[in-house]
Amino acid sequence: MTTRVAPKSKAFSLARYIPALGWIRTYSAETATNDLIAAVIVTIMLIPQSLAYALLAGLPPEAGLYASIVPIILYSVFGTSRSLAVGPVAVVSLMTAAAIGNVTATHDVGYATAALTLAGLSGVILVAMGLLRLGFVANFLSHPVISGFITASGLLIAASQLKHILGVDAKGHTLVELLGSLVSHLTSFNVITLIIGVSATVFLFWVRSGLKPLLIRLGLPGKMADFVTKAGPVLAVVVTTMLVWQLGLDDKGVRIVGAVPQSLPPFTMPDLSLDLLSALFMPALLISIIGFVESISVAQTLAAKKRQRIDPDQELIGLGAANIGASLTGGFPVTGGFSRSVVNFDAGAETPAAGAFTAVGLAVAALFLTPLIFFLPNATLAATIIVAVLSLVDFKTLRHSWAYSKRDFWAVAATMLLTLLFGVEIGVTAGVLLSIMLFLYDTARPHVAEVGLVRGTEHFRNIHRHRVLTDPTVLSLRIDQSLYFANARFLEDYIYDRVIDDKALKHVVLMCSAVNEIDLSALETLEGINTRLKEMGITLSLSEVKGPVMDRLQRGDFLEHLTGAVFLSQFDAFEALVSEQPGLTASAEPAAPSRAARFAGG
Amino acid sequence: MTTRVAPKSKAFSLARYIPALGWIRTYSAETATNDLIAAVIVTIMLIPQSLAYALLAGLPPEAGLYASIVPIILYSVFGTSRSLAVGPVAVVSLMTAAAIGNVTATHDVGYATAALTLAGLSGVILVAMGLLRLGFVANFLSHPVISGFITASGLLIAASQLKHILGVDAKGHTLVELLGSLVSHLTSFNVITLIIGVSATVFLFWVRSGLKPLLIRLGLPGKMADFVTKAGPVLAVVVTTMLVWQLGLDDKGVRIVGAVPQSLPPFTMPDLSLDLLSALFMPALLISIIGFVESISVAQTLAAKKRQRIDPDQELIGLGAANIGASLTGGFPVTGGFSRSVVNFDAGAETPAAGAFTAVGLAVAALFLTPLIFFLPNATLAATIIVAVLSLVDFKTLRHSWAYSKRDFWAVAATMLLTLLFGVEIGVTAGVLLSIMLFLYDTARPHVAEVGLVRGTEHFRNIHRHRVLTDPTVLSLRIDQSLYFANARFLEDYIYDRVIDDKALKHVVLMCSAVNEIDLSALETLEGINTRLKEMGITLSLSEVKGPVMDRLQRGDFLEHLTGAVFLSQFDAFEALVSEQPGLTASAEPAAPSRAARFAGG
Repeated sequence: MTTRVAPKSKAFSLARYIPALGWIRTYSAETATNDLIAAVIVTIMLIPQSLAYALLAGLPPEAGLYASIVPIILYSVFGTSRSLAVGPVAVVSLMTAAAIGNVTATHDVGYATAALTLAGLSGVILVAMGLLRLGFVANFLSHPVISGFITASGLLIAASQLKHILGVDAKGHTLVELLGSLVSHLTSFNVITLIIGVSATVFLFWVRSGLKPLLIRLGLPGKMADFVTKAGPVLAVVVTTMLVWQLGLDDKGVRIVGAVPQSLPPFTMPDLSLDLLSALFMPALLISIIGFVESISVAQTLAAKKRQRIDPDQELIGLGAANIGASLTGGFPVTGGFSRSVVNFDAGAETPAAGAFTAVGLAVAALFLTPLIFFLPNATLAATIIVAVLSLVDFKTLRHSWAYSKRDFWAVAATMLLTLLFGVEIGVTAGVLLSIMLFLYDTARPHVAEVGLVRGTEHFRNIHRHRVLTDPTVLSLRIDQSLYFANARFLEDYIYDRVIDDKALKHVVLMCSAVNEIDLSALETLEGINTRLKEMGITLSLSEVKGPVMDRLQRGDFLEHLTGAVFLSQFDAFEALVSEQPGLTASAEPAAPSRAARFAGG
Repeated sequence: MTTRVAPKSKAFSLARYIPALGWIRTYSAETATNDLIAAVIVTIMLIPQSLAYALLAGLPPEAGLYASIVPIILYSVFGTSRSLAVGPVAVVSLMTAAAIGNVTATHDVGYATAALTLAGLSGVILVAMGLLRLGFVANFLSHPVISGFITASGLLIAASQLKHILGVDAKGHTLVELLGSLVSHLTSFNVITLIIGVSATVFLFWVRSGLKPLLIRLGLPGKMADFVTKAGPVLAVVVTTMLVWQLGLDDKGVRIVGAVPQSLPPFTMPDLSLDLLSALFMPALLISIIGFVESISVAQTLAAKKRQRIDPDQELIGLGAANIGASLTGGFPVTGGFSRSVVNFDAGAETPAAGAFTAVGLAVAALFLTPLIFFLPNATLAATIIVAVLSLVDFKTLRHSWAYSKRDFWAVAATMLLTLLFGVEIGVTAGVLLSIMLFLYDTARPHVAEVGLVRGTEHFRNIHRHRVLTDPTVLSLRIDQSLYFANARFLEDYIYDRVIDDKALKHVVLMCSAVNEIDLSALETLEGINTRLKEMGITLSLSEVKGPVMDRLQRGDFLEHLTGAVFLSQFDAFEALVSEQPGLTASAEPAAPSRAARFAGG
């Protein structure tokens, strides 16, 4: 019996579903101190980020704060990562904007309600996936598709923020719509807004690239320099807010955040009308899966550094709880964010308690600090978004995949292009379907090598790569793929094409060392091949059949009808079949094998 | 270089696209005689069958004759099978009835026009698939899905014909609709119709099972007995027609075929309105693929018996031409039928000219014989359909697949059930999607075996199946699947889970003998695994990497970063890594290996 690797079945334990019960028992004052320091750093970074992502999602700024408070606490109870910081993130906020933009246009529902309904639905989907152990579904998002999607989303997000930098109205969910709308409103741009926006953008780019080395040259310790750098957006916020306030720039057309309620997150109820829920289902599913993929990647990267373990199915439950929390407290869809989690980790967070402390910090901000951002210009928030998302843009994968594998290249390129042209939902869906179709296409046309014996050994190699011994009466084919419905007929066609004009042939041997499965369609095809070869006076044999495959074959009567035999090794098969007519002939000298063939044995 | 098996690229030649140019050059008087005899036999069999399938498709009987004349000629020019007989077949006729039933309910178009538009669209789709060499698409219909679909279709067809046997009105495209409609009309059944219908059905079943042995016992030569048996339906037609005519049963409520125009196939034009075409597109695509699969299976079975070759892509063109022909001459969707082709083959047809002769025979029938079927009762036609389709019903696959492979079982069962409950289109679509999803699910959770050295050999085997040598510092994993996006994270999780608590571990070796591909996602995952293992102080090595996989790995920088090495064989890897600390330990004695494990080496 080989071990089929499957999710471990454990007896039910509360600690399994509430991981917090694990770490909380050993929580010490020292750990608390470390968590508290991390929380302070993350809180300072999160204030402008939360406001900005709310803006990106098309929501009032306070929604960003609310979405960062209760969700982070719920995740700290139900999640398995010790370092993940949950809240609004760029790509999910963009997807939220697209989804609620569509649904508010066709349904009688407000933006804020649509957003929290979307979060609630996404939360329920995530929890359901977790309980049903469907975490593996996320695996069907290939790296190229994710990379293409994130890059295109980054460009879309940056484009969507240009209106704030220019101080004009513009909207759209595709690159063409966004740029078209921008151009048509271009004449009404506001000079002062543009100056603030451009200055903030340039400043923030400089903070990212130039400030830290400078600070270190100035003698600041690395950790401190890092902290100051991370606080760059706060500095931009403070300076531009002061400027607008002092110079009365809001009267000169600079759009500002304005009055934000001083309040803890309110209790809110999603709209549970069936019509709205069904309209939001697909977007919620996509947001759930994309959010999960982003979150689990970050969580696993950080966990591996400390030899900690992430349970993907429990992560679904943690993220689901966070989203349900967001839905009930005036938020919008959230997930584990890359930048905030890395900051949290680097700042020394040891347990999810750091997240809970961050939540307290943000609650304090929501209660007391919101009057301070009355004069904060939207252009500054847009600048923080642009600088953050342009770091997501990565065209290297295009070049990389072109060199490595064309199939992967087409998946990246198509996902990127379709996302830019038709929006996030169509882009990512088409990317996933395309990558699955390309994979199926490849498995449907398996690599089949005609093999011969390497002189003086028991090894069989491709006759086109190596100088090998063959016999005109024996055809040995190595099939480099499992046999299943999509390639069964291909094998059939291949064998007939090869066999029909070869009058000397008496035996066909299929070498099955790389055949990990033979499904019912393939079995029936093998039966058909066996029968038809028999009618031509040719026997069919198999060699090197794996244990699990053999187990199955023995359940039916195929082996009884098989005209040849099942040989332990290809060499056994060759010896047994050729012995009838001993004259071996070496095949023609092939071209010199490639370096790889020599290296790995083709 | 291994030979990647791909469609052969040949220089353009007319004979490639018009296979008739090949056989017609050597056509002799003897061949013509054989073809002519076969044509007479097939014609006699086809007359009632064509009328019956027109009835099944919901069309006037003459449509069945028309659909058998021009299409068969066009196929004989463009098709590659020497024995295939093209015309209306049961399952495609049922699908046609469902498609035109739906479309005439929502669009302003008549039954006949909808049917020939469907045929035309299907023809264009088939030709396009042929030119684009998309024949492989049909391979995604697995045998279990086809079997489940055909069985359920057979039951649906039989149920749809019960109304003719009972002489009532009833309609529907699912089993529930059909039976419900039958029950609600049951009170108005016609006794005489029922007697004719049941008698004809019983007679035809007896002809199938009892007549031939009887005739042979009576001294008739086998071939002659076969011919008489095949003519059974004609006998039923003649007898019941005479009865109705002589006894004036049509005045007593027995529904008859009635006036059928005496005419050669008329020239007809499909309705090319975009709205109708888009409504018919999906049904036409499904009909094309199902028809192609049915046809190619028959063609390949017959061709193999004579060592002839079928070109699947050219077959698409042949069938496409036939359907376009049907569309322009008052027909409906056609394909290569099993029973008529087998009869044609058995009767000695040598070339597609037999098909052309059959077309002439049917044209004569359409011109001169239609008055003779005025009194033919619909119940007789229904009986011929019921007897024909019940031979398609096959529940053995359910039992067979349950024993062989659960995945295949669920595909059969779901296809069968969904076809019966929701109709042919939903049934077959869901079946295909389900079988693909189940395949992907399996490849996403590959078989991974922890292996150890079989004492005294260089072979590595599963530690749970065999008594093998392992070393606490070396973990050897054999991956029985190509590595691609859907299983990359699975491997990652598997390795981390296995490694995290094993403090003695220093080396991980991935044995890649069954890895036929590593895509970009898997490569990036391997890079991630390499990095994280490095952080844990563990090296990562590969062994037995195949040539094509190695070629690709060498294009990137993965091998430079690899903390371990790439070993030619797993034995090399084990020797090199263990030598640092020589104490080998035998793993615990496992349970006795199964017969299969002993046989094939697990």
